[in-house]
Amino acid sequence: MQTPPTLQAIRYQRGSLLILDQLKLPDETVYISIHTADDAWKAIHTMTIRGAPAIAVCGILSVAVELHNSRSKFDSISSVIQFITHQLNYLVTARPTAVNMTDAAKTIIDYLIPLNNKQQNLTLYIDELLDFMEQFLQRDLIDNRLIGQYGAETMCQYISNKKKLNILTHCNTGSLATVGFGTALGIIRQLAANNVLQLAYFTETRPYNQGSRLTAYELVHDRIPHTMICDSMAGLLMRTQPIHAVIVGADRVTANGDTANKIGTYQLAILAKHHDIPFYIAAPTTSIDLSKKSGDEIIIEQRPSSEMTTVKGINLAPEGVQVWNPAFDVTPASLITGIITEHGVFKPDELEEKLLNLQRSLISPL
Amino acid sequence: MQTPPTLQAIRYQRGSLLILDQLKLPDETVYISIHTADDAWKAIHTMTIRGAPAIAVCGILSVAVELHNSRSKFDSISSVIQFITHQLNYLVTARPTAVNMTDAAKTIIDYLIPLNNKQQNLTLYIDELLDFMEQFLQRDLIDNRLIGQYGAETMCQYISNKKKLNILTHCNTGSLATVGFGTALGIIRQLAANNVLQLAYFTETRPYNQGSRLTAYELVHDRIPHTMICDSMAGLLMRTQPIHAVIVGADRVTANGDTANKIGTYQLAILAKHHDIPFYIAAPTTSIDLSKKSGDEIIIEQRPSSEMTTVKGINLAPEGVQVWNPAFDVTPASLITGIITEHGVFKPDELEEKLLNLQRSLISPL
Repeated sequence: MQTPPTLQAIRYQRGSLLILDQLKLPDETVYISIHTADDAWKAIHTMTIRGAPAIAVCGILSVAVELHNSRSKFDSISSVIQFITHQLNYLVTARPTAVNMTDAAKTIIDYLIPLNNKQQNLTLYIDELLDFMEQFLQRDLIDNRLIGQYGAETMCQYISNKKKLNILTHCNTGSLATVGFGTALGIIRQLAANNVLQLAYFTETRPYNQGSRLTAYELVHDRIPHTMICDSMAGLLMRTQPIHAVIVGADRVTANGDTANKIGTYQLAILAKHHDIPFYIAAPTTSIDLSKKSGDEIIIEQRPSSEMTTVKGINLAPEGVQVWNPAFDVTPASLITGIITEHGVFKPDELEEKLLNLQRSLISPL
Repeated sequence: MQTPPTLQAIRYQRGSLLILDQLKLPDETVYISIHTADDAWKAIHTMTIRGAPAIAVCGILSVAVELHNSRSKFDSISSVIQFITHQLNYLVTARPTAVNMTDAAKTIIDYLIPLNNKQQNLTLYIDELLDFMEQFLQRDLIDNRLIGQYGAETMCQYISNKKKLNILTHCNTGSLATVGFGTALGIIRQLAANNVLQLAYFTETRPYNQGSRLTAYELVHDRIPHTMICDSMAGLLMRTQPIHAVIVGADRVTANGDTANKIGTYQLAILAKHHDIPFYIAAPTTSIDLSKKSGDEIIIEQRPSSEMTTVKGINLAPEGVQVWNPAFDVTPASLITGIITEHGVFKPDELEEKLLNLQRSLISPL
């Protein structure tokens, strides 16, 4: 298999959005054109694109592309506002657990009204709105780099006797889950770049195999030393190998530090605790939802049974088998050592206060 | 898919041995003829037949078939002894972790010499030896029934307010892993027969999918209410559903109660402890190896990486991915509530003493 020169889940320029079809990975590297919010909704729902940050950026840019390419249809600023609001609210429903899309939609909708109040002309209004929406792309890249740096600094405390680190991760949180670099996998990339990574262990991540399809693809592509395990092997791995930390991503972190992430995360946290291994969440603050007090308020998305019983159209189980297929689980804050964000690393119990302080400092005049 | 009238991993009559090709399940129900110990070695090694009790019975009966069909080749009792000893020692190497084959080989080899001392004629010697070897088939069935009964009695303590039981199991320990009925799955069968089973939860059991291929096949076939989960979902299941007990099989139990079983068992035991759920091993005493003091003495078999990276010839991961594929893990006795055998249910710390007493009472004259 020839690997492409760079890994980009999303390729964008004004009026054009291409996304890498992650359902075809690792066998084929195929980009799909997204022309409308409806295209994006389908791509998100079918997991052609996945990863909370990538979902949000794809969703927003699909609306930007649709807006730009149908400028002539709009006769007023209020018609634009109505259109954008409608499309964003629709996109939020494609994958309900990921908070980033909801957050991004809210941020943009909040931005629409002040723009309107300025009573600009329509062309200028649309241009400014496109500029604003396009910032999400660049912001995601910058956030990931910062998460990588803060994470790598934090991991250094676990280096002893100059031995390199073994890190275990879950699912895919890399260039394919974000716009580039990644969150948990971004930290692993940074550790490899700093030459302090021994091995990146990662789970297959059943049932959707984001580990064996996507994380494997990225690590092979980037020549990062790695070892894949089945989800069932994490316990034995922790018992028999020196694992210095577990680092995973997040679909949503609540105010108390509880974290919804890919199914299997919760039990990795229990296993880490049992073996005295630190357990970290790596996520941009856009994945933190202070409006929810705890993980009890998160509704866990259920996925179709065929995701478990088939792979590439082949049956893995006999006809008539009954299955349970929750897409996510919630890891209680008590099992989490720290949450690595683009603003630094927080303990779960200080997360809310520090984030609120941060928001106040960003809002208040200097 | 049409299901066969009965589930039999092994079909035997003197001179003929057929085994169900478990690699073709659940898609096809195909029996393979085993003519020699060499055929059996290959079938065991490729996991065409698997499950510690079934492996042992298949191995022994393959030697019985080979002996019976080549009677004319032997000119003395000592040539028979040499042949049987050689074939049995060879069969032990097919799957090193399962103790049942080793045990059975030892029992038969011990039996050869006293027979020889009686200086019987060759035909009579071979007939008696065949009778002896064939007893392993019947013994396995009886043991499983007893395990089922003891297990079902033990589970009754967890019934409260007349609510039926939810049991979680792992891998395949049913009719397909044994000669019939099963060990852990035999208990589930018995609970269903007693009308006290709500749901049998079972894991897919990656990487070899014994759960999704074999346990699913048996439960669908027997119309036992069930729900399949991925190995990564056990934690969330225990947190959100009332799971009354976890029951798994064993490939080998050591004197202190440590238990080697299918990879993933160890972490299920940790998860059960974290959620205060009782964790049971179900195994015939032939799986208990008092010659080993603890699980530290068990060598864990490593399996080929292709078992993880492909399914039915289809790639699940990109070329070049590195994997770790241990077939088993060892669950320490401290995580085990009880060991359910055909002689009753033992706590890990009383296992050795009670078994030794049992052996003494069986040997000593009344």
